[in-house]
Amino acid sequence: MKKYNVAVVGATGLVGTTILKVLEERDFPIQKLTLLASRKSKGEELMFRDRKYLVEELNENSFDADIDIAFFAAGGGISERYAPIAASKGVVVIDNSSVFRMDEGVPLVVPEVNGEDTFKNCGIIANPNCSTIQCMLPLKAIDNKHKIKRVVYSTYQSVSGSGLKGLKDLEEGKNGFYPYNIMENLIPHIDVFLDNGYTKEEMKMIQESRKILHRDDLKVTATTVRVPVKFSHCVSINIELEEEFDLKGIRTILSSYPGIIVKDDLKNLQYPMPIDVEGKDEVYVGRIRRDYSLDNGLNIWVVADNIRKGAATNAVQIAQVLIGKED
Amino acid sequence: MKKYNVAVVGATGLVGTTILKVLEERDFPIQKLTLLASRKSKGEELMFRDRKYLVEELNENSFDADIDIAFFAAGGGISERYAPIAASKGVVVIDNSSVFRMDEGVPLVVPEVNGEDTFKNCGIIANPNCSTIQCMLPLKAIDNKHKIKRVVYSTYQSVSGSGLKGLKDLEEGKNGFYPYNIMENLIPHIDVFLDNGYTKEEMKMIQESRKILHRDDLKVTATTVRVPVKFSHCVSINIELEEEFDLKGIRTILSSYPGIIVKDDLKNLQYPMPIDVEGKDEVYVGRIRRDYSLDNGLNIWVVADNIRKGAATNAVQIAQVLIGKED
Repeated sequence: MKKYNVAVVGATGLVGTTILKVLEERDFPIQKLTLLASRKSKGEELMFRDRKYLVEELNENSFDADIDIAFFAAGGGISERYAPIAASKGVVVIDNSSVFRMDEGVPLVVPEVNGEDTFKNCGIIANPNCSTIQCMLPLKAIDNKHKIKRVVYSTYQSVSGSGLKGLKDLEEGKNGFYPYNIMENLIPHIDVFLDNGYTKEEMKMIQESRKILHRDDLKVTATTVRVPVKFSHCVSINIELEEEFDLKGIRTILSSYPGIIVKDDLKNLQYPMPIDVEGKDEVYVGRIRRDYSLDNGLNIWVVADNIRKGAATNAVQIAQVLIGKED
Repeated sequence: MKKYNVAVVGATGLVGTTILKVLEERDFPIQKLTLLASRKSKGEELMFRDRKYLVEELNENSFDADIDIAFFAAGGGISERYAPIAASKGVVVIDNSSVFRMDEGVPLVVPEVNGEDTFKNCGIIANPNCSTIQCMLPLKAIDNKHKIKRVVYSTYQSVSGSGLKGLKDLEEGKNGFYPYNIMENLIPHIDVFLDNGYTKEEMKMIQESRKILHRDDLKVTATTVRVPVKFSHCVSINIELEEEFDLKGIRTILSSYPGIIVKDDLKNLQYPMPIDVEGKDEVYVGRIRRDYSLDNGLNIWVVADNIRKGAATNAVQIAQVLIGKED
């Protein structure tokens, strides 16, 4: 079996360490592993498959070594500067930042949804926004059968979406990273505000949904909110379909879609919640019900671990598609 | 000035004690105050205007004394049994439970919105659901000028909505009252599940909105979610209007409506949040922006203290309308 030389940029961060964990769990065929991070993490040691690895400082020559695949999880600035360098040296970059996501030549991939796009890359493949990823599976499942006309997202996003700094704010109950205390509070503000009154996070959800679903005509709006939860994002999705549907049929469509677990047994109070979904790779869907305010309306509640399916797991799945070793 | 004999049923609960506080703050003209509660609270002492009051046990004869207005805040079972008794004895009941809200002869009142309905009562006036109340002010303000066609609610409801039991669950980080731990979690389940897949809370928001706005034809859907916040409910509202609107005009409409404070200054990161709104009587509206997925779409974010405007304050305001002493 062919093995690959893999690098992880931002190896010491929340997403970086989880990428390492997922690479182990999925038995990704690695020949050589290179861990890269900023100067302040240089010399740290991380375990991978019972072996210690020394973290190296990222620099312009980091990709001169024979690297096949590099996961970037060190923020937009680092990706912007170093991903093109890596790509120019023949490395395939799987980038967790938002920098290249909407670029024409950059595939934006959720493997269960548009895995085939992975191969149309010029050296950079983008991992979508965490909240967007988890919505793509149920929306694609439904759109395959009944064309979706319009989507309204309201998100409930955990602090780990901001990495270790977000977790620290919640744990310490003070605002070091967020503009306000997030403990026992909600902040309707994720990423920066744009001129149209939306946050960049909201616009990511709108634009990335269209690109991943190959539906430039899809009508989407979003409100994104930070909540005092450590792991897992939740999204209340209101969907308008183009045509009539059968609710039982929707359940079947969702249950049989790869990567989705339907948890929707109201008699036994079974619905998706962050505490159950934390640590899982699947997207959980529940509260599936007709929206009677529309002819063809549907409400669903979608929960996924934002660090795993929303970031690390999805990135590793893209690499698996790339090497033809999907689960 | 005429003074009134007032009773508070459920006087020791979270809403009951807040009703007392609001009666004091608003200098409600009280002749005689009667505090009623269950047997286990009998004999407790509560302060009101620097005087101690003894809590009496509620029974069928509690309303034989000359009581003008009784606030009920002791849950649906108590209201169902005792409110009709009180009404039959000439007391005007302002009931915080959901028992009578949808009854034909019972006005369901948010004073700023449909205060005039107060007088068409047969002895019982219903205080609406907490999440519904706060949405009614901005929706009525907008509906007055541009007819609203459809509303999608996604709520973020604090644990105080379940009274002291909800607060205890969050403070202790275990589930004594909720079916699951609410700390660092979200529970997409408020009140009981109905056959149509909605919770009773969601159906309250749908049906009560139509009744309060006098818009039986209004299209509404809702998803209600409990969040680990102590006080204040937040609602992400997506609105479709019947006609074109001007966003600046919407801001003016909202700012000038009684009981609404617009907090929407993105440059200075000003938007409504639970920590700021706790203890306030007004409804805070922010994140006002066009929904580009519709011809006439609008998104707003609405926050209010669920115990005050969502319960106690609104109930006392109803009493003020009743006696012609509105602020």
